[in-house]
Amino acid sequence: MTYCVAIKLDDGIICLSDTRTNAGIDTISKYKKMFTWQREGDRVITMMTAGNLAITQAVISLLNENIEHVEDGIETLYTAPTMFRVAEIVGDAMRIVMGRYGPGLTAAGESSASSIVVAGQRAGGDMRLFQVYSAGNFIEATEDTPYFQIGEHKYGKPILDRVIEPSTPLNVGITAAFLSMDSTLRSNLSVGMPLDVAVMRQGQIGFDQLRRIEEGDEAWAEMSEAWSGALRGAFHEMTQIDV
Amino acid sequence: MTYCVAIKLDDGIICLSDTRTNAGIDTISKYKKMFTWQREGDRVITMMTAGNLAITQAVISLLNENIEHVEDGIETLYTAPTMFRVAEIVGDAMRIVMGRYGPGLTAAGESSASSIVVAGQRAGGDMRLFQVYSAGNFIEATEDTPYFQIGEHKYGKPILDRVIEPSTPLNVGITAAFLSMDSTLRSNLSVGMPLDVAVMRQGQIGFDQLRRIEEGDEAWAEMSEAWSGALRGAFHEMTQIDV
Repeated sequence: MTYCVAIKLDDGIICLSDTRTNAGIDTISKYKKMFTWQREGDRVITMMTAGNLAITQAVISLLNENIEHVEDGIETLYTAPTMFRVAEIVGDAMRIVMGRYGPGLTAAGESSASSIVVAGQRAGGDMRLFQVYSAGNFIEATEDTPYFQIGEHKYGKPILDRVIEPSTPLNVGITAAFLSMDSTLRSNLSVGMPLDVAVMRQGQIGFDQLRRIEEGDEAWAEMSEAWSGALRGAFHEMTQIDV
Repeated sequence: MTYCVAIKLDDGIICLSDTRTNAGIDTISKYKKMFTWQREGDRVITMMTAGNLAITQAVISLLNENIEHVEDGIETLYTAPTMFRVAEIVGDAMRIVMGRYGPGLTAAGESSASSIVVAGQRAGGDMRLFQVYSAGNFIEATEDTPYFQIGEHKYGKPILDRVIEPSTPLNVGITAAFLSMDSTLRSNLSVGMPLDVAVMRQGQIGFDQLRRIEEGDEAWAEMSEAWSGALRGAFHEMTQIDV
């Protein structure tokens, strides 16, 4: 399984992904699910993937192949004039890959379902956040729904619903993303450390943070423990109320 | 959808269920999913159902039919000597109903998946808590896993995992069940009020509580609000930690 969350705030976009994949309970491996592209001052793009690993890897590879063979004149992540076009290019790559492998997977009774979160900013444009589906179609995050989750989304959703608004400060949004991941890590064994974090600040065409949080990270463990304690405290208050 | 939770503590068993069912997003109705049987001082039984409504209604009806036609000599919920036999009787009824309708549902591409939580106590026996599956097989709650959830279980699981142990006092367990339901109500529109509550205290062969919490219940709303406030407070503490 997978858990990836992307939050679009007025101040910037936060992306957080785990690295565990499994093909059955006895085939668990570690794969990076976050991919980034940047050209300082021109564009910064982060993608996160969930679903069929072969499908999403093929999509990412195809996008990178096209960048390397720019002489073919195909529009790429680095030549697209807007983030909207970037989302379309990702959707087109998804359609090509699904066309190649989807029918075979369906025939074998395997799921080909995949999704890709696409976030970023082009110089002169707004920050934008999209979620691309298996069919290559996509939706964009709005003021009403400023975040996307892909993969195992349920455990980590309540904290986002309670805390996230477009005006939420970036550091508060990062905490919410971390606690959303913490709840998911605790409840679903097929979501696992290490984690990849990307933070893109509004108007700054580059990464404010781009780092990995390793298994056993002390600050992460401290936060996780403190959150457990705070929740137990909050719960204790509740036992005083008679329903 | 449905959310039902049953918690087995040293002090007793708590059952809590919602009442919303849906066949598609535009066919939502209200159905009680909690069923009780009691003979004061002899036995007390609570069941909660999830899954295909026609299947679970047929199982409950069959169990009640057999009680009414006791002259047929069939062992019933009221004549079974132990709670284990009660679980077997429910499993047998499930197998009969699934045998009748399962193949037709499968042929129509509909899900026949259903589950029934069975909780109770027989005079002279221990309190026991079982979960019966579609095939009529069942598992029992243990010290390691003292609760069962059926239906939309993910949103309400983290609070149970953090709080529930066999030694948890009954009133604390009730609060945990209520907050587990509150999280689910907030996150899934197909789970809805009113709620049915049954509390059976260890050694008392009857109901300590058997009541309905209606939509708009003031004490419930107060608890829900207080929990939101407490969570926001707990979250605010977290934003002070730097990961």
